[in-house]
Amino acid sequence: MELWQVPLSFSRLRMFPFFDLAHYVASVLALKEQRGVVEVSIRSPLACWFSAMLYCFGGSVLSLLMLGEPPVAFLAKTINILLASSVWYLVFYCPEDIFCRCFSFLPLRLLVAGMKEVTRTWKITDGIAHADTVYKDAFLIMVAVGWARGAGGGLISNFEQLVRGVWKPETNELLQMSYPVKVTLIGAVLFTLQRRQYLPIAKHNLVFLYTIFLVVFKVKMILTRCSTSPLAPLEAAVGQMFFGSRKTPSKVKGESATSSNGSSVCDQPSEQHHEGAKKKQAKKTE
Amino acid sequence: MELWQVPLSFSRLRMFPFFDLAHYVASVLALKEQRGVVEVSIRSPLACWFSAMLYCFGGSVLSLLMLGEPPVAFLAKTINILLASSVWYLVFYCPEDIFCRCFSFLPLRLLVAGMKEVTRTWKITDGIAHADTVYKDAFLIMVAVGWARGAGGGLISNFEQLVRGVWKPETNELLQMSYPVKVTLIGAVLFTLQRRQYLPIAKHNLVFLYTIFLVVFKVKMILTRCSTSPLAPLEAAVGQMFFGSRKTPSKVKGESATSSNGSSVCDQPSEQHHEGAKKKQAKKTE
Amino acid sequence: MELWQVPLSFSRLRMFPFFDLAHYVASVLALKEQRGVVEVSIRSPLACWFSAMLYCFGGSVLSLLMLGEPPVAFLAKTINILLASSVWYLVFYCPEDIFCRCFSFLPLRLLVAGMKEVTRTWKITDGIAHADTVYKDAFLIMVAVGWARGAGGGLISNFEQLVRGVWKPETNELLQMSYPVKVTLIGAVLFTLQRRQYLPIAKHNLVFLYTIFLVVFKVKMILTRCSTSPLAPLEAAVGQMFFGSRKTPSKVKGESATSSNGSSVCDQPSEQHHEGAKKKQAKKTE
Repeated sequence: MELWQVPLSFSRLRMFPFFDLAHYVASVLALKEQRGVVEVSIRSPLACWFSAMLYCFGGSVLSLLMLGEPPVAFLAKTINILLASSVWYLVFYCPEDIFCRCFSFLPLRLLVAGMKEVTRTWKITDGIAHADTVYKDAFLIMVAVGWARGAGGGLISNFEQLVRGVWKPETNELLQMSYPVKVTLIGAVLFTLQRRQYLPIAKHNLVFLYTIFLVVFKVKMILTRCSTSPLAPLEAAVGQMFFGSRKTPSKVKGESATSSNGSSVCDQPSEQHHEGAKKKQAKKTE
Repeated sequence: MELWQVPLSFSRLRMFPFFDLAHYVASVLALKEQRGVVEVSIRSPLACWFSAMLYCFGGSVLSLLMLGEPPVAFLAKTINILLASSVWYLVFYCPEDIFCRCFSFLPLRLLVAGMKEVTRTWKITDGIAHADTVYKDAFLIMVAVGWARGAGGGLISNFEQLVRGVWKPETNELLQMSYPVKVTLIGAVLFTLQRRQYLPIAKHNLVFLYTIFLVVFKVKMILTRCSTSPLAPLEAAVGQMFFGSRKTPSKVKGESATSSNGSSVCDQPSEQHHEGAKKKQAKKTE
Repeated sequence: MELWQVPLSFSRLRMFPFFDLAHYVASVLALKEQRGVVEVSIRSPLACWFSAMLYCFGGSVLSLLMLGEPPVAFLAKTINILLASSVWYLVFYCPEDIFCRCFSFLPLRLLVAGMKEVTRTWKITDGIAHADTVYKDAFLIMVAVGWARGAGGGLISNFEQLVRGVWKPETNELLQMSYPVKVTLIGAVLFTLQRRQYLPIAKHNLVFLYTIFLVVFKVKMILTRCSTSPLAPLEAAVGQMFFGSRKTPSKVKGESATSSNGSSVCDQPSEQHHEGAKKKQAKKTE
């Protein structure tokens, strides 16, 4: 295989079973880091399982709902459900927490996180292709479904929390978009433009470049333990150009400055940092 | 054209683009009057945009959901979305708020409000026709879908508010129906009865009379700055006859009495008055 | 008819109209026992009616939603809606509350409660059959739809409460499963296994035995005024075996012990007891 064939081969990669498995592991571990989940896993394994399924298959459920298809359809892929359920069981009920401890080993954590980001690209393109078969040439629907498919777990987080008895109406992923949700939206726009042939790039090259971008920044975020969004300058520019918002960019800049300089602030992994910020805000509004 | 032909010609009026545009303007301006929306528009333009789309297309979304069709289908009408998005942009981000100031000019405000009420009739009949093609002769489904299509923005207001981070579970449009929601319900019942040929009136005449009713009372409400519902006596009679409620009518009467006499109470437009009442109630329950 | 033919004849029993009627009566009476419903019935008969319909047809609505079919389809069975609406009217607006007083007569109450439990079996098997026609051989979907159809009113209780202006996010039927929801889940699993021919029992025999189980324990619960779940030992065993939870079984045992010994605790009917427990928990978290 020559070098220029790498993107093409990469774009033919199959997600099942290894990449899917990494997605389930990363998702369920992220769920376990949420406050109060361990108590829920003891009180009601069923609610915990359902929450875990929404973390793993939230994108499918949301995109099925949006396209008017049965939201239970995700349960039809029995093998995937069994895989995800096994991961859920091992994460929450493994004796002496062996499974979780394994995945706190940094190289393994990086591998899983990287592989999870690869599945994101595949989900976005799947969602866009699905929407395109249902609605021919409806640009906005393609973007919306691609976005929902790739970032579903985040977008339905309010209702996922409700399953666990948590309700935080004062925030949601539209009001305070997290980095994965933002980058998925950009990806959905890019892949839709590519599909409608507005971008002078072959699909497999875009898949390759976008995935490299996702993986590199995810790994960087874990290694530096900082949630500095690489999109902050772009957001600031767009915000200033279209919405005349002087507040937003300065705030974003300030945040990123703190994140990259103040190492005392950045001494925790990005998910916890993000979650911590949410908690603080929740407290303030309560 | 002779006089007796007016209703027929009127019923052939096309909503696109001018009446639709008036509906978008009136809806987005109503959204901007809600508490906290301007802050949301600065913090997260996307959440604000989504909220505005729910204000403009809430009826479509709700009726599509009720009929098991893809709720994203409303995004397929690209032209309408572009129109509504332009209105949203101008209302929220226009330099020096020129757009909003224009529409605080009373004659223009009356025109837009009147045209918006015209679209209501069209939506109700569209919804009923749509339901009739899916479920032959299901009276209740026709009423429900016609109502949802005409008053959708109100009926889903709890979830529209959730997009903006606001959650008021203690009230909803079923518990405290506002005048537009009530009058749309009556319209949905009348048009369904007409369609099933229980009413001795031609469709175009009913369309004409109902729209005149809607527009006249809307204009009167804006001019008198009072939210006196013309339906209060009807409600009182029905409440007393069927539900033996002596409380409800007296309360409604009292409210309408205050509204028509106490000019100090009625010194704000109806939407704000209604919103103010909601806020008071929200405070009480908090 | 000989004795061995009883299950077969029983399984051919038609639910309409008498068993359906009993289901509506029991459901609407259970709704009226909820805190604050009587005030809602005075303030907004429409919200009260919609709440009652969700109590009566919640299972249909939820299973239709899950299978991507129009959730309003339940309104198409006009006769059933009229029956349920008549029951709702009589329960809430009957002069001097005659209707409710009749059904506080114990033998009548037992009859209605028993007949309601019979409809549960029919709903579970209907739901499973429906799911099987849409998704061939998808075990989990059959269980999920059967469960949703049989216990729908409970599973959507958070959203049913929202109609009445009540919001209790800290609890739901997945976090704290009530006995009817649990037993319906077990039934859905059993009937799905039977349908997939993993159980060495004919369908009519399983229907007969499961219904007998439901009715006997329901009657026992009403007579002893205790909500001791006959499933507690099973739960404890499963909890200890799979989820290593020493807390859960001890708590369940403790609860059942209190229920069977301490007669002072058990002096109220099971629904009220359950509701009372929920209220306490709600207070704690508020």
